[in-house]
Amino acid sequence: MHQLNHGISFILGGARSGKSSFAEGLITASGLELVYVATGRAWDEEMSVRIDLHKAQRGSSWHTIEEPLDLVDTLQGVAADGKAILVDCLTLWLTNLMMAERDITAETRQLVQALPKLQGSIVLVSNEVGLGIVPENRMARDFRDHAGRLHQAVAQAAATVYFVAAGLPLTMKG
Amino acid sequence: MHQLNHGISFILGGARSGKSSFAEGLITASGLELVYVATGRAWDEEMSVRIDLHKAQRGSSWHTIEEPLDLVDTLQGVAADGKAILVDCLTLWLTNLMMAERDITAETRQLVQALPKLQGSIVLVSNEVGLGIVPENRMARDFRDHAGRLHQAVAQAAATVYFVAAGLPLTMKG
Amino acid sequence: MHQLNHGISFILGGARSGKSSFAEGLITASGLELVYVATGRAWDEEMSVRIDLHKAQRGSSWHTIEEPLDLVDTLQGVAADGKAILVDCLTLWLTNLMMAERDITAETRQLVQALPKLQGSIVLVSNEVGLGIVPENRMARDFRDHAGRLHQAVAQAAATVYFVAAGLPLTMKG
Repeated sequence: MHQLNHGISFILGGARSGKSSFAEGLITASGLELVYVATGRAWDEEMSVRIDLHKAQRGSSWHTIEEPLDLVDTLQGVAADGKAILVDCLTLWLTNLMMAERDITAETRQLVQALPKLQGSIVLVSNEVGLGIVPENRMARDFRDHAGRLHQAVAQAAATVYFVAAGLPLTMKG
Repeated sequence: MHQLNHGISFILGGARSGKSSFAEGLITASGLELVYVATGRAWDEEMSVRIDLHKAQRGSSWHTIEEPLDLVDTLQGVAADGKAILVDCLTLWLTNLMMAERDITAETRQLVQALPKLQGSIVLVSNEVGLGIVPENRMARDFRDHAGRLHQAVAQAAATVYFVAAGLPLTMKG
Repeated sequence: MHQLNHGISFILGGARSGKSSFAEGLITASGLELVYVATGRAWDEEMSVRIDLHKAQRGSSWHTIEEPLDLVDTLQGVAADGKAILVDCLTLWLTNLMMAERDITAETRQLVQALPKLQGSIVLVSNEVGLGIVPENRMARDFRDHAGRLHQAVAQAAATVYFVAAGLPLTMKG
Protein backbone atom coordinates (compact mmCIF):
# COMPACT_ATOMS: atom_id res chain seq x y z
CA MET A 1 0.00 0.00 0.00
CA HIS A 2 1.08 3.54 -0.76
CA GLN A 3 1.28 5.92 2.21
CA LEU A 4 0.91 9.66 2.44
CA ASN A 5 4.19 11.46 3.11
CA HIS A 6 4.78 14.67 4.96
CA GLY A 7 5.40 17.45 2.46
CA ILE A 8 4.38 17.59 -1.18
CA SER A 9 2.91 14.70 -3.16
CA PHE A 10 2.08 15.15 -6.84
CA ILE A 11 -0.39 12.93 -8.68
CA LEU A 12 -0.50 13.14 -12.45
CA GLY A 13 -2.89 11.24 -14.69
CA GLY A 14 -5.25 11.37 -17.62
CA ALA A 15 -8.95 12.13 -17.74
CA ARG A 16 -10.99 9.54 -15.76
CA SER A 17 -7.75 7.82 -14.77
CA GLY A 18 -8.76 7.50 -11.13
CA LYS A 19 -6.16 10.04 -10.03
CA SER A 20 -8.55 11.91 -7.69
CA SER A 21 -9.81 8.70 -6.09
CA PHE A 22 -6.25 7.54 -5.57
CA ALA A 23 -5.38 10.90 -3.99
CA GLU A 24 -8.45 10.76 -1.75
CA GLY A 25 -7.63 7.22 -0.62
CA LEU A 26 -4.05 8.22 0.18
CA ILE A 27 -5.19 11.19 2.26
CA THR A 28 -8.14 9.52 3.99
CA ALA A 29 -5.90 6.70 5.23
CA SER A 30 -3.52 9.21 6.83
CA GLY A 31 -5.74 9.92 9.82
CA LEU A 32 -4.99 13.63 9.43
CA GLU A 33 -7.53 16.46 9.33
CA LEU A 34 -8.83 16.53 5.74
CA VAL A 35 -9.04 19.66 3.61
CA TYR A 36 -10.20 19.65 0.02
CA VAL A 37 -9.27 22.61 -2.17
CA ALA A 38 -11.49 22.53 -5.24
CA THR A 39 -10.22 24.73 -8.08
CA GLY A 40 -13.04 23.76 -10.46
CA ARG A 41 -15.51 26.40 -11.51
CA ALA A 42 -18.91 25.45 -12.88
CA TRP A 43 -18.77 27.17 -16.29
CA ASP A 44 -21.70 25.12 -17.55
CA GLU A 45 -24.14 22.43 -16.49
CA GLU A 46 -21.85 19.55 -17.53
CA MET A 47 -19.14 20.89 -15.21
CA SER A 48 -21.61 21.61 -12.43
CA VAL A 49 -22.88 18.03 -12.49
CA ARG A 50 -19.29 16.74 -12.31
CA ILE A 51 -18.45 18.94 -9.32
CA ASP A 52 -21.58 17.92 -7.38
CA LEU A 53 -21.03 14.25 -8.12
CA HIS A 54 -17.44 14.51 -6.93
CA LYS A 55 -18.51 16.26 -3.71
CA ALA A 56 -21.11 13.60 -2.95
CA GLN A 57 -18.58 10.79 -3.56
CA ARG A 58 -16.12 12.42 -1.15
CA GLY A 59 -18.42 12.35 1.87
CA SER A 60 -18.69 14.62 4.88
CA SER A 61 -15.36 14.13 6.66
CA TRP A 62 -13.73 16.77 4.47
CA HIS A 63 -13.58 20.51 4.93
CA THR A 64 -14.05 21.88 1.41
CA ILE A 65 -12.70 25.20 0.13
CA GLU A 66 -13.57 26.39 -3.36
CA GLU A 67 -10.85 28.60 -4.76
CA PRO A 68 -10.57 28.96 -8.54
CA LEU A 69 -7.73 31.53 -8.61
CA ASP A 70 -5.90 32.44 -5.42
CA LEU A 71 -4.50 29.03 -4.71
CA VAL A 72 -1.23 30.18 -3.13
CA ASP A 73 -2.94 32.43 -0.55
CA THR A 74 -5.43 29.67 0.23
CA LEU A 75 -2.71 27.08 0.81
CA GLN A 76 -0.66 29.46 2.94
CA GLY A 77 -3.75 30.22 5.02
CA VAL A 78 -4.83 26.66 5.63
CA ALA A 79 -1.71 24.44 5.59
CA ALA A 80 -0.67 23.28 9.06
CA ASP A 81 0.88 20.35 10.86
CA GLY A 82 -1.68 17.61 11.36
CA LYS A 83 -3.58 18.57 8.22
CA ALA A 84 -3.69 16.87 4.83
CA ILE A 85 -4.72 19.10 1.94
CA LEU A 86 -5.85 17.83 -1.44
CA VAL A 87 -5.72 20.30 -4.35
CA ASP A 88 -7.92 19.06 -7.19
CA CYS A 89 -6.69 20.06 -9.67
CA LEU A 90 -3.85 22.17 -11.07
CA THR A 91 -5.07 22.04 -14.67
CA LEU A 92 -8.43 23.58 -13.70
CA TRP A 93 -6.54 26.27 -11.76
CA LEU A 94 -4.45 26.97 -14.89
CA THR A 95 -7.63 27.16 -16.98
CA ASN A 96 -9.11 29.68 -14.56
CA LEU A 97 -5.91 31.78 -14.59
CA MET A 98 -5.99 31.84 -18.40
CA MET A 99 -9.69 32.81 -18.48
CA ALA A 100 -9.04 35.58 -15.95
CA GLU A 101 -6.02 36.75 -18.00
CA ARG A 102 -3.70 36.48 -15.01
CA ASP A 103 0.09 36.33 -15.46
CA ILE A 104 0.50 32.57 -15.55
CA THR A 105 4.29 32.51 -15.40
CA ALA A 106 4.26 34.69 -12.28
CA GLU A 107 1.41 32.81 -10.57
CA THR A 108 2.84 29.38 -11.18
CA ARG A 109 6.31 30.49 -10.03
CA GLN A 110 4.71 31.82 -6.84
CA LEU A 111 3.07 28.45 -6.23
CA VAL A 112 6.26 26.51 -6.81
CA GLN A 113 8.20 28.82 -4.46
CA ALA A 114 5.51 28.55 -1.76
CA LEU A 115 5.26 24.74 -1.80
CA PRO A 116 8.46 23.86 0.14
CA LYS A 117 7.47 26.21 2.98
CA LEU A 118 3.99 24.76 3.60
CA GLN A 119 3.38 22.71 6.77
CA GLY A 120 1.59 19.36 6.85
CA SER A 121 0.86 17.13 3.88
CA ILE A 122 -0.14 18.61 0.53
CA VAL A 123 -1.34 16.48 -2.35
CA LEU A 124 -1.59 18.17 -5.74
CA VAL A 125 -3.55 16.45 -8.51
CA SER A 126 -3.20 17.38 -12.17
CA ASN A 127 -4.12 16.20 -15.67
CA GLU A 128 -1.42 15.14 -18.09
CA VAL A 129 -2.54 16.74 -21.38
CA GLY A 130 0.60 16.55 -23.53
CA LEU A 131 0.45 13.03 -24.94
CA GLY A 132 -1.93 13.56 -27.86
CA ILE A 133 -1.54 15.15 -31.29
CA VAL A 134 -0.48 18.85 -31.27
CA PRO A 135 -3.77 20.80 -30.95
CA GLU A 136 -4.72 23.01 -33.91
CA ASN A 137 -5.94 25.71 -31.56
CA ARG A 138 -3.26 28.14 -30.31
CA MET A 139 -4.82 28.57 -26.87
CA ALA A 140 -4.81 24.80 -26.36
CA ARG A 141 -1.11 24.69 -27.34
CA ASP A 142 -0.32 27.47 -24.85
CA PHE A 143 -2.29 25.69 -22.16
CA ARG A 144 -0.40 22.47 -22.84
CA ASP A 145 2.90 24.32 -22.53
CA HIS A 146 1.93 25.98 -19.25
CA ALA A 147 0.69 22.69 -17.83
CA GLY A 148 3.83 20.82 -18.85
CA ARG A 149 6.16 23.43 -17.34
CA LEU A 150 4.13 23.57 -14.13
CA HIS A 151 4.16 19.78 -13.84
CA GLN A 152 7.95 19.69 -14.17
CA ALA A 153 8.37 22.36 -11.47
CA VAL A 154 5.86 20.75 -9.09
CA ALA A 155 7.43 17.32 -9.60
CA GLN A 156 10.80 18.81 -8.69
CA ALA A 157 9.37 20.33 -5.48
CA ALA A 158 7.54 17.12 -4.57
CA ALA A 159 8.85 14.32 -2.36
CA THR A 160 6.61 11.79 -4.10
CA VAL A 161 5.24 11.72 -7.64
CA TYR A 162 2.73 9.21 -8.98
CA PHE A 163 1.47 8.68 -12.51
CA VAL A 164 -2.01 7.11 -12.44
CA ALA A 165 -3.54 5.11 -15.31
CA ALA A 166 -6.64 2.90 -15.11
CA GLY A 167 -6.77 3.61 -11.37
CA LEU A 168 -3.28 2.17 -10.81
CA PRO A 169 -0.47 4.35 -9.45
CA LEU A 170 3.05 4.16 -10.81
CA THR A 171 5.70 5.72 -8.58
CA MET A 172 7.79 8.16 -10.62
CA LYS A 173 9.63 9.64 -7.63
CA GLY A 174 9.92 8.90 -3.92
CA MET B 1 9.87 -12.55 -20.37
CA HIS B 2 6.28 -11.81 -19.46
CA GLN B 3 3.99 -14.81 -19.16
CA LEU B 4 0.28 -15.19 -19.65
CA ASN B 5 -1.61 -15.70 -16.39
CA HIS B 6 -4.77 -17.61 -15.80
CA GLY B 7 -7.65 -15.16 -15.42
CA ILE B 8 -7.87 -11.61 -16.67
CA SER B 9 -4.99 -9.64 -18.18
CA PHE B 10 -5.52 -6.04 -19.26
CA ILE B 11 -3.27 -4.29 -21.77
CA LEU B 12 -3.59 -0.54 -22.13
CA GLY B 13 -1.66 1.60 -24.58
CA GLY B 14 -1.79 4.38 -27.14
CA ALA B 15 -2.43 4.22 -30.87
CA ARG B 16 0.29 2.20 -32.69
CA SER B 17 1.91 1.47 -29.34
CA GLY B 18 2.38 -2.21 -30.11
CA LYS B 19 -0.22 -3.21 -27.52
CA SER B 20 -1.94 -5.75 -29.81
CA SER B 21 1.36 -7.34 -30.87
CA PHE B 22 2.41 -7.60 -27.24
CA ALA B 23 -0.93 -9.22 -26.39
CA GLU B 24 -0.62 -11.65 -29.29
CA GLY B 25 2.91 -12.60 -28.28
CA LEU B 26 1.81 -13.22 -24.70
CA ILE B 27 -1.05 -15.45 -25.80
CA THR B 28 0.77 -17.31 -28.57
CA ALA B 29 3.55 -18.31 -26.16
CA SER B 30 1.00 -19.84 -23.77
CA GLY B 31 0.47 -22.97 -25.83
CA LEU B 32 -3.28 -22.66 -25.24
CA GLU B 33 -6.02 -22.81 -27.86
CA LEU B 34 -6.15 -19.32 -29.40
CA VAL B 35 -9.33 -17.31 -29.85
CA TYR B 36 -9.40 -13.80 -31.23
CA VAL B 37 -12.46 -11.65 -30.53
CA ALA B 38 -12.40 -8.70 -32.93
CA THR B 39 -14.70 -5.87 -31.92
CA GLY B 40 -13.72 -3.64 -34.86
CA ARG B 41 -16.28 -2.82 -37.46
CA ALA B 42 -15.26 -1.63 -40.90
CA TRP B 43 -17.07 1.74 -41.01
CA ASP B 44 -14.97 2.89 -43.95
CA GLU B 45 -12.17 1.76 -46.23
CA GLU B 46 -9.40 3.01 -43.92
CA MET B 47 -10.75 0.84 -41.12
CA SER B 48 -11.32 -2.11 -43.44
CA VAL B 49 -7.69 -2.02 -44.59
CA ARG B 50 -6.52 -1.95 -40.96
CA ILE B 51 -8.66 -4.94 -40.01
CA ASP B 52 -7.49 -7.04 -42.98
CA LEU B 53 -3.85 -6.16 -42.35
CA HIS B 54 -4.21 -7.13 -38.71
CA LYS B 55 -5.83 -10.46 -39.64
CA ALA B 56 -3.04 -11.31 -42.10
CA GLN B 57 -0.36 -10.48 -39.53
CA ARG B 58 -2.00 -12.76 -36.98
CA GLY B 59 -1.77 -15.92 -39.06
CA SER B 60 -3.93 -19.01 -39.20
CA SER B 61 -3.51 -20.57 -35.76
CA TRP B 62 -6.26 -18.37 -34.37
CA HIS B 63 -9.99 -18.93 -34.31
CA THR B 64 -11.46 -15.49 -35.04
CA ILE B 65 -14.85 -14.23 -33.88
CA GLU B 66 -16.11 -10.85 -35.02
CA GLU B 67 -18.44 -9.33 -32.45
CA PRO B 68 -18.95 -5.56 -32.43
CA LEU B 69 -21.61 -5.38 -29.68
CA ASP B 70 -22.49 -8.48 -27.68
CA LEU B 71 -19.09 -9.00 -26.13
CA VAL B 72 -20.31 -10.39 -22.81
CA ASP B 73 -22.42 -13.14 -24.43
CA THR B 74 -19.56 -14.00 -26.76
CA LEU B 75 -17.06 -14.31 -23.93
CA GLN B 76 -19.43 -16.39 -21.81
CA GLY B 77 -20.05 -18.68 -24.80
CA VAL B 78 -16.42 -19.27 -25.73
CA ALA B 79 -14.30 -18.97 -22.54
CA ALA B 80 -13.08 -22.32 -21.23
CA ASP B 81 -10.15 -23.94 -19.49
CA GLY B 82 -7.32 -24.50 -21.93
CA LYS B 83 -8.30 -21.50 -24.05
CA ALA B 84 -6.71 -18.09 -24.32
CA ILE B 85 -8.99 -15.35 -25.62
CA LEU B 86 -7.77 -12.01 -26.91
CA VAL B 87 -10.33 -9.18 -27.06
CA ASP B 88 -9.09 -6.44 -29.38
CA CYS B 89 -10.22 -3.92 -28.34
CA LEU B 90 -12.46 -2.41 -25.67
CA THR B 91 -12.39 1.12 -27.12
CA LEU B 92 -13.79 -0.12 -30.44
CA TRP B 93 -16.49 -2.01 -28.53
CA LEU B 94 -17.35 1.23 -26.67
CA THR B 95 -17.48 3.10 -29.97
CA ASN B 96 -19.89 0.50 -31.38
CA LEU B 97 -22.09 0.68 -28.26
CA MET B 98 -22.27 4.48 -28.58
CA MET B 99 -23.10 4.30 -32.31
CA ALA B 100 -25.83 1.73 -31.58
CA GLU B 101 -27.13 3.93 -28.74
CA ARG B 102 -26.87 1.11 -26.22
CA ASP B 103 -26.85 1.81 -22.48
CA ILE B 104 -23.11 2.03 -21.94
CA THR B 105 -23.18 2.12 -18.15
CA ALA B 106 -25.27 -1.07 -18.06
CA GLU B 107 -23.25 -2.88 -20.72
CA THR B 108 -19.88 -2.07 -19.22
CA ARG B 109 -21.07 -3.04 -15.72
CA GLN B 110 -22.25 -6.36 -17.16
CA LEU B 111 -18.81 -6.98 -18.66
CA VAL B 112 -16.99 -6.14 -15.44
CA GLN B 113 -19.30 -8.43 -13.44
CA ALA B 114 -18.86 -11.28 -15.93
CA LEU B 115 -15.05 -11.15 -16.06
CA PRO B 116 -14.23 -12.85 -12.72
CA LYS B 117 -16.45 -15.82 -13.60
CA LEU B 118 -14.88 -16.62 -16.98
CA GLN B 119 -12.73 -19.76 -17.33
CA GLY B 120 -9.31 -19.85 -19.00
CA SER B 121 -7.14 -16.86 -19.85
CA ILE B 122 -8.69 -13.65 -21.11
CA VAL B 123 -6.59 -10.77 -22.44
CA LEU B 124 -8.38 -7.46 -22.95
CA VAL B 125 -6.68 -4.76 -25.03
CA SER B 126 -7.72 -1.11 -24.94
CA ASN B 127 -6.61 2.35 -26.05
CA GLU B 128 -5.72 4.96 -23.48
CA VAL B 129 -7.37 8.13 -24.84
CA GLY B 130 -7.35 10.48 -21.84
CA LEU B 131 -3.86 11.98 -21.98
CA GLY B 132 -4.41 14.73 -24.55
CA ILE B 133 -6.11 18.11 -24.43
CA VAL B 134 -9.85 18.06 -23.50
CA PRO B 135 -11.67 17.46 -26.82
CA GLU B 136 -13.92 20.30 -28.02
CA ASN B 137 -16.51 17.79 -29.17
CA ARG B 138 -19.00 16.65 -26.50
CA MET B 139 -19.27 13.11 -27.84
CA ALA B 140 -15.50 12.71 -27.68
CA ARG B 141 -15.52 13.91 -24.06
CA ASP B 142 -18.26 11.42 -23.18
CA PHE B 143 -16.34 8.66 -24.92
CA ARG B 144 -13.20 9.55 -22.98
CA ASP B 145 -15.15 9.41 -19.73
CA HIS B 146 -16.69 6.02 -20.54
CA ALA B 147 -13.32 4.61 -21.59
CA GLY B 148 -11.58 5.89 -18.46
CA ARG B 149 -14.22 4.45 -16.13
CA LEU B 150 -14.21 1.12 -17.96
CA HIS B 151 -10.40 0.94 -17.78
CA GLN B 152 -10.46 1.51 -14.02
CA ALA B 153 -13.05 -1.22 -13.52
CA VAL B 154 -11.32 -3.72 -15.81
CA ALA B 155 -7.94 -3.01 -14.17
CA GLN B 156 -9.52 -3.74 -10.80
CA ALA B 157 -10.90 -7.07 -12.05
CA ALA B 158 -7.60 -8.01 -13.73
CA ALA B 159 -4.80 -10.05 -12.19
CA THR B 160 -2.24 -8.38 -14.45
CA VAL B 161 -2.23 -4.93 -16.06
CA TYR B 162 0.33 -3.68 -18.57
CA PHE B 163 0.81 -0.23 -20.03
CA VAL B 164 2.50 -0.48 -23.44
CA ALA B 165 4.47 2.35 -25.09
CA ALA B 166 6.79 2.02 -28.09
CA GLY B 167 6.19 -1.74 -28.00
CA LEU B 168 7.53 -2.03 -24.43
CA PRO B 169 5.29 -3.28 -21.61
CA LEU B 170 5.31 -1.68 -18.19
CA THR B 171 3.73 -3.78 -15.46
CA MET B 172 1.17 -1.67 -13.59
CA LYS B 173 -0.29 -4.60 -11.61
CA GLY B 174 0.55 -8.25 -11.03
CA MET C 1 21.50 8.82 -11.48
CA HIS C 2 20.92 7.65 -15.03
CA GLN C 3 24.02 7.31 -17.20
CA LEU C 4 24.49 7.55 -20.91
CA ASN C 5 25.17 4.21 -22.56
CA HIS C 6 27.20 3.46 -25.63
CA GLY C 7 24.86 2.83 -28.54
CA ILE C 8 21.27 3.96 -28.96
CA SER C 9 19.16 5.58 -26.25
CA PHE C 10 15.56 6.51 -26.97
CA ILE C 11 13.66 9.11 -24.93
CA LEU C 12 9.92 9.34 -25.40
CA GLY C 13 7.65 11.85 -23.70
CA GLY C 14 4.80 14.30 -24.08
CA ALA C 15 4.86 17.99 -24.95
CA ARG C 16 6.74 20.04 -22.30
CA SER C 17 7.51 16.81 -20.43
CA GLY C 18 11.15 17.73 -19.90
CA LYS C 19 12.33 15.01 -22.31
CA SER C 20 14.85 17.25 -24.08
CA SER C 21 16.29 18.58 -20.81
CA PHE C 22 16.61 15.04 -19.52
CA ALA C 23 18.37 14.01 -22.75
CA GLU C 24 20.71 17.01 -22.55
CA GLY C 25 21.57 16.26 -18.92
CA LEU C 26 22.31 12.64 -19.77
CA ILE C 27 24.61 13.60 -22.63
CA THR C 28 26.32 16.55 -20.94
CA ALA C 29 27.31 14.38 -17.97
CA SER C 30 28.99 11.86 -20.31
CA GLY C 31 32.08 13.98 -20.89
CA LEU C 32 31.92 13.11 -24.59
CA GLU C 33 32.08 15.56 -27.49
CA LEU C 34 28.55 16.98 -27.82
CA VAL C 35 26.65 17.16 -31.09
CA TYR C 36 23.09 18.42 -31.35
CA VAL C 37 21.07 17.47 -34.43
CA ALA C 38 18.07 19.78 -34.61
CA THR C 39 15.33 18.54 -36.94
CA GLY C 40 13.00 21.46 -36.21
CA ARG C 41 12.18 23.88 -38.97
CA ALA C 42 10.86 27.34 -38.21
CA TRP C 43 7.54 27.24 -40.14
CA ASP C 44 6.23 30.27 -38.25
CA GLU C 45 7.21 32.76 -35.58
CA GLU C 46 5.94 30.59 -32.71
CA MET C 47 8.24 27.78 -33.81
CA SER C 48 11.13 30.13 -34.45
CA VAL C 49 10.89 31.51 -30.90
CA ARG C 50 10.87 27.97 -29.51
CA ILE C 51 13.97 26.97 -31.48
CA ASP C 52 15.94 30.09 -30.42
CA LEU C 53 14.95 29.65 -26.78
CA HIS C 54 16.04 26.03 -26.87
CA LYS C 55 19.39 26.95 -28.44
CA ALA C 56 20.07 29.62 -25.80
CA GLN C 57 19.22 27.19 -22.98
CA ARG C 58 21.64 24.62 -24.38
CA GLY C 59 24.72 26.81 -24.18
CA SER C 60 27.89 26.91 -26.25
CA SER C 61 29.53 23.53 -25.54
CA TRP C 62 27.47 21.89 -28.29
CA HIS C 63 28.17 21.62 -31.99
CA THR C 64 24.74 22.16 -33.60
CA ILE C 65 23.65 20.73 -36.95
CA GLU C 66 20.26 21.68 -38.39
CA GLU C 67 18.90 18.94 -40.60
CA PRO C 68 15.15 18.77 -41.20
CA LEU C 69 15.15 15.86 -43.70
CA ASP C 70 18.33 13.89 -44.35
CA LEU C 71 18.78 12.59 -40.85
CA VAL C 72 20.31 9.24 -41.80
CA ASP C 73 23.09 10.79 -43.93
CA THR C 74 23.78 13.33 -41.20
CA LEU C 75 24.08 10.69 -38.50
CA GLN C 76 26.30 8.48 -40.68
CA GLY C 77 28.53 11.48 -41.40
CA VAL C 78 28.96 12.66 -37.83
CA ALA C 79 28.65 9.62 -35.53
CA ALA C 80 32.01 8.49 -34.12
CA ASP C 81 33.58 6.98 -31.02
CA GLY C 82 33.98 9.62 -28.33
CA LYS C 83 30.98 11.58 -29.55
CA ALA C 84 27.49 11.85 -28.09
CA ILE C 85 24.79 12.91 -30.54
CA LEU C 86 21.38 14.18 -29.52
CA VAL C 87 18.63 14.07 -32.17
CA ASP C 88 15.78 16.38 -31.17
CA CYS C 89 13.33 15.21 -32.31
CA LEU C 90 11.98 12.35 -34.41
CA THR C 91 8.41 13.69 -34.55
CA LEU C 92 9.60 16.97 -36.11
CA TRP C 93 11.63 14.94 -38.62
CA LEU C 94 8.49 12.93 -39.47
CA THR C 95 6.52 16.17 -39.88
CA ASN C 96 9.15 17.48 -42.28
CA LEU C 97 9.13 14.23 -44.27
CA MET C 98 5.33 14.41 -44.59
CA MET C 99 5.44 18.08 -45.66
CA ALA C 100 8.11 17.27 -48.25
CA GLU C 101 6.06 14.27 -49.46
CA ARG C 102 8.94 11.89 -48.93
CA ASP C 103 8.35 8.12 -48.70
CA ILE C 104 8.02 7.83 -44.94
CA THR C 105 8.04 4.05 -44.77
CA ALA C 106 11.29 3.90 -46.74
CA GLU C 107 12.96 6.76 -44.84
CA THR C 108 12.09 5.44 -41.40
CA ARG C 109 13.19 1.91 -42.35
CA GLN C 110 16.51 3.36 -43.50
CA LEU C 111 16.96 5.10 -40.15
CA VAL C 112 16.16 1.99 -38.16
CA GLN C 113 18.58 -0.09 -40.26
CA ALA C 114 21.34 2.50 -39.89
CA LEU C 115 21.09 2.87 -36.10
CA PRO C 116 22.85 -0.36 -35.01
CA LYS C 117 25.87 0.47 -37.20
CA LEU C 118 26.52 3.97 -35.82
CA GLN C 119 29.57 4.53 -33.59
CA GLY C 120 29.48 6.44 -30.28
CA SER C 121 26.39 7.33 -28.26
CA ILE C 122 23.20 8.38 -30.01
CA VAL C 123 20.23 9.75 -28.08
CA LEU C 124 16.97 10.05 -30.00
CA VAL C 125 14.16 12.16 -28.54
CA SER C 126 10.55 11.89 -29.68
CA ASN C 127 7.02 12.95 -28.76
CA GLU C 128 4.45 10.37 -27.79
CA VAL C 129 1.31 11.53 -29.62
CA GLY C 130 -0.96 8.47 -29.49
CA LEU C 131 -2.59 8.79 -26.06
CA GLY C 132 -5.38 11.23 -26.84
CA ILE C 133 -8.71 10.91 -28.64
CA VAL C 134 -8.50 9.74 -32.31
CA PRO C 135 -7.94 12.95 -34.31
CA GLU C 136 -10.73 13.94 -36.72
CA ASN C 137 -8.16 14.99 -39.30
CA ARG C 138 -6.87 12.20 -41.60
CA MET C 139 -3.35 13.63 -41.85
CA ALA C 140 -3.08 13.73 -38.05
CA ARG C 141 -4.19 10.07 -37.88
CA ASP C 142 -1.58 9.10 -40.48
CA PHE C 143 1.07 11.04 -38.58
CA ARG C 144 0.13 9.28 -35.36
CA ASP C 145 0.44 5.91 -37.09
CA HIS C 146 3.84 6.72 -38.57
CA ALA C 147 5.11 8.03 -35.23
CA GLY C 148 3.87 4.98 -33.34
CA ARG C 149 5.47 2.52 -35.78
CA LEU C 150 8.74 4.44 -35.77
CA HIS C 151 8.80 4.52 -31.96
CA GLN C 152 8.34 0.75 -31.79
CA ALA C 153 11.17 0.16 -34.26
CA VAL C 154 13.54 2.64 -32.59
CA ALA C 155 12.76 1.19 -29.15
CA GLN C 156 13.64 -2.25 -30.47
CA ALA C 157 16.98 -0.98 -31.83
CA ALA C 158 17.76 0.93 -28.62
CA ALA C 159 19.74 -0.38 -25.65
CA THR C 160 17.92 2.00 -23.31
CA VAL C 161 14.42 3.49 -23.51
CA TYR C 162 13.02 6.12 -21.15
CA PHE C 163 9.52 7.51 -20.89
CA VAL C 164 9.60 11.03 -19.42
CA ALA C 165 6.66 12.71 -17.65
CA ALA C 166 6.83 15.86 -15.51
CA GLY C 167 10.61 15.85 -15.98
CA LEU C 168 10.94 12.39 -14.42
CA PRO C 169 12.35 9.47 -16.42
CA LEU C 170 10.85 6.01 -16.23
CA THR C 171 13.10 3.25 -17.56
CA MET C 172 11.14 1.15 -20.07
CA LYS C 173 14.16 -0.83 -21.29
CA GLY C 174 17.80 -1.25 -20.30
